[in-house]
Amino acid sequence: MFRHTDHLQFDAKPEKPDPVYAHKLQELIGGAYGEMTVTMQYLFQGWNCRMPGKYKDLIMDVATEEIGHVEMIAIMVARLLEGAPATATTKMAAADPVVGAVLGGMDPQQAIVAGGGALLADSNGYPWNGRFIIASGNLLADFRANAAAEAQGRVQTARLYNMTDDPGVRNMLKFNLARDTLHQNVWLKAIEELQADGLETTVAPNALFDEEYAEHATSVWHLSDGTAAQEGGWASGLQPDGQHEFGYLTDPEALGDDGAPPPPDPALYATYDGGMGKPSGPALGTETGIAGKIKDKFT
Amino acid sequence: MFRHTDHLQFDAKPEKPDPVYAHKLQELIGGAYGEMTVTMQYLFQGWNCRMPGKYKDLIMDVATEEIGHVEMIAIMVARLLEGAPATATTKMAAADPVVGAVLGGMDPQQAIVAGGGALLADSNGYPWNGRFIIASGNLLADFRANAAAEAQGRVQTARLYNMTDDPGVRNMLKFNLARDTLHQNVWLKAIEELQADGLETTVAPNALFDEEYAEHATSVWHLSDGTAAQEGGWASGLQPDGQHEFGYLTDPEALGDDGAPPPPDPALYATYDGGMGKPSGPALGTETGIAGKIKDKFT
Amino acid sequence: MFRHTDHLQFDAKPEKPDPVYAHKLQELIGGAYGEMTVTMQYLFQGWNCRMPGKYKDLIMDVATEEIGHVEMIAIMVARLLEGAPATATTKMAAADPVVGAVLGGMDPQQAIVAGGGALLADSNGYPWNGRFIIASGNLLADFRANAAAEAQGRVQTARLYNMTDDPGVRNMLKFNLARDTLHQNVWLKAIEELQADGLETTVAPNALFDEEYAEHATSVWHLSDGTAAQEGGWASGLQPDGQHEFGYLTDPEALGDDGAPPPPDPALYATYDGGMGKPSGPALGTETGIAGKIKDKFT
Amino acid sequence: MFRHTDHLQFDAKPEKPDPVYAHKLQELIGGAYGEMTVTMQYLFQGWNCRMPGKYKDLIMDVATEEIGHVEMIAIMVARLLEGAPATATTKMAAADPVVGAVLGGMDPQQAIVAGGGALLADSNGYPWNGRFIIASGNLLADFRANAAAEAQGRVQTARLYNMTDDPGVRNMLKFNLARDTLHQNVWLKAIEELQADGLETTVAPNALFDEEYAEHATSVWHLSDGTAAQEGGWASGLQPDGQHEFGYLTDPEALGDDGAPPPPDPALYATYDGGMGKPSGPALGTETGIAGKIKDKFT
Amino acid sequence: MFRHTDHLQFDAKPEKPDPVYAHKLQELIGGAYGEMTVTMQYLFQGWNCRMPGKYKDLIMDVATEEIGHVEMIAIMVARLLEGAPATATTKMAAADPVVGAVLGGMDPQQAIVAGGGALLADSNGYPWNGRFIIASGNLLADFRANAAAEAQGRVQTARLYNMTDDPGVRNMLKFNLARDTLHQNVWLKAIEELQADGLETTVAPNALFDEEYAEHATSVWHLSDGTAAQEGGWASGLQPDGQHEFGYLTDPEALGDDGAPPPPDPALYATYDGGMGKPSGPALGTETGIAGKIKDKFT
Amino acid sequence: MFRHTDHLQFDAKPEKPDPVYAHKLQELIGGAYGEMTVTMQYLFQGWNCRMPGKYKDLIMDVATEEIGHVEMIAIMVARLLEGAPATATTKMAAADPVVGAVLGGMDPQQAIVAGGGALLADSNGYPWNGRFIIASGNLLADFRANAAAEAQGRVQTARLYNMTDDPGVRNMLKFNLARDTLHQNVWLKAIEELQADGLETTVAPNALFDEEYAEHATSVWHLSDGTAAQEGGWASGLQPDGQHEFGYLTDPEALGDDGAPPPPDPALYATYDGGMGKPSGPALGTETGIAGKIKDKFT
Repeated sequence: MFRHTDHLQFDAKPEKPDPVYAHKLQELIGGAYGEMTVTMQYLFQGWNCRMPGKYKDLIMDVATEEIGHVEMIAIMVARLLEGAPATATTKMAAADPVVGAVLGGMDPQQAIVAGGGALLADSNGYPWNGRFIIASGNLLADFRANAAAEAQGRVQTARLYNMTDDPGVRNMLKFNLARDTLHQNVWLKAIEELQADGLETTVAPNALFDEEYAEHATSVWHLSDGTAAQEGGWASGLQPDGQHEFGYLTDPEALGDDGAPPPPDPALYATYDGGMGKPSGPALGTETGIAGKIKDKFT
Repeated sequence: MFRHTDHLQFDAKPEKPDPVYAHKLQELIGGAYGEMTVTMQYLFQGWNCRMPGKYKDLIMDVATEEIGHVEMIAIMVARLLEGAPATATTKMAAADPVVGAVLGGMDPQQAIVAGGGALLADSNGYPWNGRFIIASGNLLADFRANAAAEAQGRVQTARLYNMTDDPGVRNMLKFNLARDTLHQNVWLKAIEELQADGLETTVAPNALFDEEYAEHATSVWHLSDGTAAQEGGWASGLQPDGQHEFGYLTDPEALGDDGAPPPPDPALYATYDGGMGKPSGPALGTETGIAGKIKDKFT
Repeated sequence: MFRHTDHLQFDAKPEKPDPVYAHKLQELIGGAYGEMTVTMQYLFQGWNCRMPGKYKDLIMDVATEEIGHVEMIAIMVARLLEGAPATATTKMAAADPVVGAVLGGMDPQQAIVAGGGALLADSNGYPWNGRFIIASGNLLADFRANAAAEAQGRVQTARLYNMTDDPGVRNMLKFNLARDTLHQNVWLKAIEELQADGLETTVAPNALFDEEYAEHATSVWHLSDGTAAQEGGWASGLQPDGQHEFGYLTDPEALGDDGAPPPPDPALYATYDGGMGKPSGPALGTETGIAGKIKDKFT
Repeated sequence: MFRHTDHLQFDAKPEKPDPVYAHKLQELIGGAYGEMTVTMQYLFQGWNCRMPGKYKDLIMDVATEEIGHVEMIAIMVARLLEGAPATATTKMAAADPVVGAVLGGMDPQQAIVAGGGALLADSNGYPWNGRFIIASGNLLADFRANAAAEAQGRVQTARLYNMTDDPGVRNMLKFNLARDTLHQNVWLKAIEELQADGLETTVAPNALFDEEYAEHATSVWHLSDGTAAQEGGWASGLQPDGQHEFGYLTDPEALGDDGAPPPPDPALYATYDGGMGKPSGPALGTETGIAGKIKDKFT
Repeated sequence: MFRHTDHLQFDAKPEKPDPVYAHKLQELIGGAYGEMTVTMQYLFQGWNCRMPGKYKDLIMDVATEEIGHVEMIAIMVARLLEGAPATATTKMAAADPVVGAVLGGMDPQQAIVAGGGALLADSNGYPWNGRFIIASGNLLADFRANAAAEAQGRVQTARLYNMTDDPGVRNMLKFNLARDTLHQNVWLKAIEELQADGLETTVAPNALFDEEYAEHATSVWHLSDGTAAQEGGWASGLQPDGQHEFGYLTDPEALGDDGAPPPPDPALYATYDGGMGKPSGPALGTETGIAGKIKDKFT
Repeated sequence: MFRHTDHLQFDAKPEKPDPVYAHKLQELIGGAYGEMTVTMQYLFQGWNCRMPGKYKDLIMDVATEEIGHVEMIAIMVARLLEGAPATATTKMAAADPVVGAVLGGMDPQQAIVAGGGALLADSNGYPWNGRFIIASGNLLADFRANAAAEAQGRVQTARLYNMTDDPGVRNMLKFNLARDTLHQNVWLKAIEELQADGLETTVAPNALFDEEYAEHATSVWHLSDGTAAQEGGWASGLQPDGQHEFGYLTDPEALGDDGAPPPPDPALYATYDGGMGKPSGPALGTETGIAGKIKDKFT
């Protein structure tokens, strides 16, 4: 269960309205790497975490903070839209270059749909959606996704920092940049600790190493014509997991068959000249279990 | 420019058809962490890479390999669908539990739309889309996303490995698991090398550290009631970037203002009692540039 | 079955072209609360209405009208795009502020894709989709959604009315505003009549009142720090349904358990320390039916 | 800013696992009328509310409660998935009708992607997205949308109640049904109070009545062949707004022009025989402002 | 403007309910090549048609018919769902293979959301959306898309015909198959007539042939290893447009440059070693127009 | 399996940067008829092609070429963005009409997300997705979709050609236009050859002509009020398939029943007055098969 205070985690007061920048800031709300993504990603990771204790508590602490980041930026957007020339006509825009420059850069839905407020969408107006998050239950895979999300988030925040010189907006972004720095360090540390605690290793998941074809876990295949890739540390030497050696396959050949699909079911009307014969029948089960026994008895 | 051979990178021949499993395998084609995502993510990263040389060549080698993985799994899906009871009626399903079990688990579009072939969609039939990829140009942020994608991809492949006992399917998955192991190691190594080459450090982007509020780059805020998070390595000690100390704020208070949005534009018809006065006018530019001089002259 | 006349329900002739406004008008075609939504929402409600008679006939009358509204606005958009500087280059825009102001506010797809016509998308270019409509079969729930849709639609139309001073555009919008006024009244009246006819009451659905926990159908929970909510009519007194009393819980405590997810299936590779034991086996059916008898017999 | 306790608002413990039902419950998490929608709809309405006081506090109280409902159902889903035959093969399903019935009804992504946890998607696997919410700033329009959302939500919850006989699942749903009853009453009461406070009336927005064509705000147009619609209260008498009379137009004629789009821009290659002449040039601004004066001077 | 009669264009009465088939039939309502697509595609083509006369009238006749096809199939779906075991529990499914087979193949939203009615979605539950249609204004390009849509539509209808043996369902599909046959012929004939009328030729658009590089409009490039493509009629001889000769390039070489992106803007934090120098400044306009003159004067 | 060379298929070097045009070019990358669509459409058609030989080889040759077109345009976009005023503030835009005109027309995500590179999205920022492609296995239906896609693609390319006067951009587009000309001819020729080879005829699929109602495969129904449609070649004479005669039904009447949905399941809470009685029970199977025999025996 959650509780809320109207006070923002940090100030979000622009010095002046700027509806064009309000449009761009939507990226930090509803973009694939915006605050909504980290909020819901961490909440679902926390709810799906199978171990009470420090990992789950950390996830829920950070998740709960991130809802407050969505809030801060949503409020900032509303404030940047104050006094926006929302209902200015095109005639005004065409007659006044200043109005024209502003109108051209605004998000029409912030006025028409949200009445001067933020949308749950990115800077191209595409809505945030649930496929942007990942919560697999495997904490190594998930913490890596978290460190990546915080890195992309800080890159985007830094770019947006350079797109404004409003002291109030920059004030908020200086806080957000700092939190993104911290959270990158937090998830990197949590990955270290998962390994130190013996819960995970370098490769996720820590399983099926005996089943996978070890000889194919070693070499980068050279399939594009630039040849510098073999100069990197990934072309020879010990792999980060400490188990495999890196290699580099300079002239790889396809190992597989000719990739022909099977003959088609005539009732599906694929164009077909009969050259591969008829399709085999379904062969799904052994039918040696109960159903098989039943069939034997009754037919 | 690309070239293609019909020979698959590795064999993709099931022992027997299994249309239910063909449905699940869609996740590895069109899921958010499937082969299509890594293909397009790496291609756009390569095309957006600003340094000729080993990093770009590595990205393009792996990207080109991944298109071939989409191909392998698409062919495997078509073969698993051979002889599927695609046009069986519900009456047959209801009369025969074996048919019923199979029909219930099939993807209807694989028959109706694709005529017994693979779709560019995930295991819930949701189409793959371009928001699943990230290519920011910042290689640290991008390689972290790549390591995360390969980890999630191997977790999903491992789960799917346990959902079949067909030797042919497992044969292909043993190859894929191995490549996912290698690629996790490759991107982790590439991150190390970016840092060794002095191109990036621990936090992405390597910038704006003087601008961000350093005092907020240190402490996890305790906002959920489990208290174990302070036992983790992220609550004290040096951060992975070697620059900051970790802290833990046990009783954080909101630092911000009351979060009130500004008075609304009357022409947008937000419900409003006038309590906050009228909205300020737009104040976008100094107008001291050319436009300002022009206005001074002409008005 | 439908029939069509080329004559529009009402005139849709702008005085002058205005491609920037044509961009904004897309919201009334393909937005979540645009004409396409009410068209398809009412059609599916009508087709799903289980009572021949006045409700179904009303729904179909209004639905059929709304297709004509999509038509009117699509034609208006095409006319507003006449003579748009669709193929002007950026060089021209940069050299002429008037062209620049116009080009900056245009929808690129109206030219590139639709050749100077309307799109089935909203003012941010996001396509209309079938999840925007609801037709549940419960007419109280559906008519409430209809009254809400007409209200949002009239709010958006009113905002767009203030964004133009073209007499021809305003002429059409004056018709649309009036229809939105009427349709709000129509659906509110229809809700009254559903109740007068004894088909529905205040709460949808009119069922399961004995099963639900009545003690939790009374109080607003105070979970955010503003305290004025207890001053509202929803904090005490009789509820609109005439059955419940309102209350206000000033210091609510969570009533539930600790929210721990169960131990994970090892074959799914969730990170787990074993602290909660092994997962239970599936326990889905009693197997005392036919299948149970069969199993008893054959195993 | 938000705070969180791990304790759920209400218990969410099924008696037995049931992965098929876990699939269906997704509708209450990520469906267009699920808990995620009301959470984000209320949060954005609260952040966009232009009046401190009882309305804003109410919105934030209920919004904060709803995040906790997403949590409850997400945990319930994870528990229903315990011991699910996630990695059973099709061969097992085909051999055992019980396993077959279960596997056929499961959501493949709950196992493959979420590792036995909930997804942020609906019961057809379609992800929740930001276009599902509305926060217009007009509280009458928004509260109507809220009352509609709670009605649809209770209808769906009631249907799901009838799809299980697990006492633990029903226990949680009895709480949710009660909250949906209360919340319908709350938003209906809040609409009454907006009107009593003189902030809004019956039609949203309370504006532009003098501009709209009053003669078209009266009659339902008869456009479908059932004739019973004229028997309803919406065909005669005073409208709910107390301002208009209802009417019914039995034989309506189109009032508009012939709907012909204008001649096309040749550079866009629409098929055209030249019959309507050439397109007019753009006529966007008066150019009598500053830009006009400048042009006069310099050209 | 449209009018409607409740009578369907053709009967849509199944002999018996079949909720599994109702699920599959969704493809013909909301699939990318379902009835909704042709309805909206033809309507927008008609509204965007720049020539009054036979083409526009044909488009509007067929478009208006197609809305009625959405209606027929939506009603058929509702009838197929009659008496569906919508609220059966998993326990029942597990105990009774017949119920299990049925439940596994049903669409959960048809019950939970639509209350036993059709959805505006495809057979995987993905909603129909506005990007599925094309109305470019170029009638050759659009009629080709129409002929393709009717072909895909008939293929899908034929597949669905083979998935049922219900005489009532087949009765409706026999009508739909016939209309799809006719409509393929209609659009092919209309393409012939566009050419006979001198409005279009073989290639769309009929323009820019002098500008395009004619030498690259001739040869298929051999980029995949199968060599049979040179045996086809597209490898030599006159092209269908009667203007070009076909060729086949057996050993094509890339004609382009090395594909290196330019040096990045430092404020965007792309990883960069400086090897390509600094980015050039923007060079958008000649500034020799009015703006240039103004700048000269004032700076 | 694929191989790649960094050399582009053709040059893609603009003379000058132009970030506004870079925005528009996105349509050719990620639009519904852009290069990504033809790439993936042809790849899936090739992988799903059931006949080794000339058709499959042609499809794979062209598919492999198209990946290279995505590449060319992505590189062109990055080069057009060089030196874009990505981090200019609104204040600068408002003060300088040239900057304002440019900023207003830019895609914010190209800077914020992609760091000055291309996105996998269209010119309205909507991501490319897998529902844009079709690969049905029926080559007549698929080749028609291909000819339509190349036609729409060339129309869009031609429009974009007219939106720039940069010699470098036009150089690339002259190559693309030529390839689109060739590819239209190629797919039209391939359709001819499918028919010449006796694999398909005029109508897709070449089946079920005896089952469909032949009397409904003849006449265009006159359902919109323009009467010129009967003047077209589709209103009389032999149809292109050489089998049917065209007709024109001037006064069509609905042939179907009244379209009433069946009585609803009470447990789904549709509003219902009981007028149509109770719903029938499910009647799915004959149960005369094995399951029926079992039931007979055990119950």
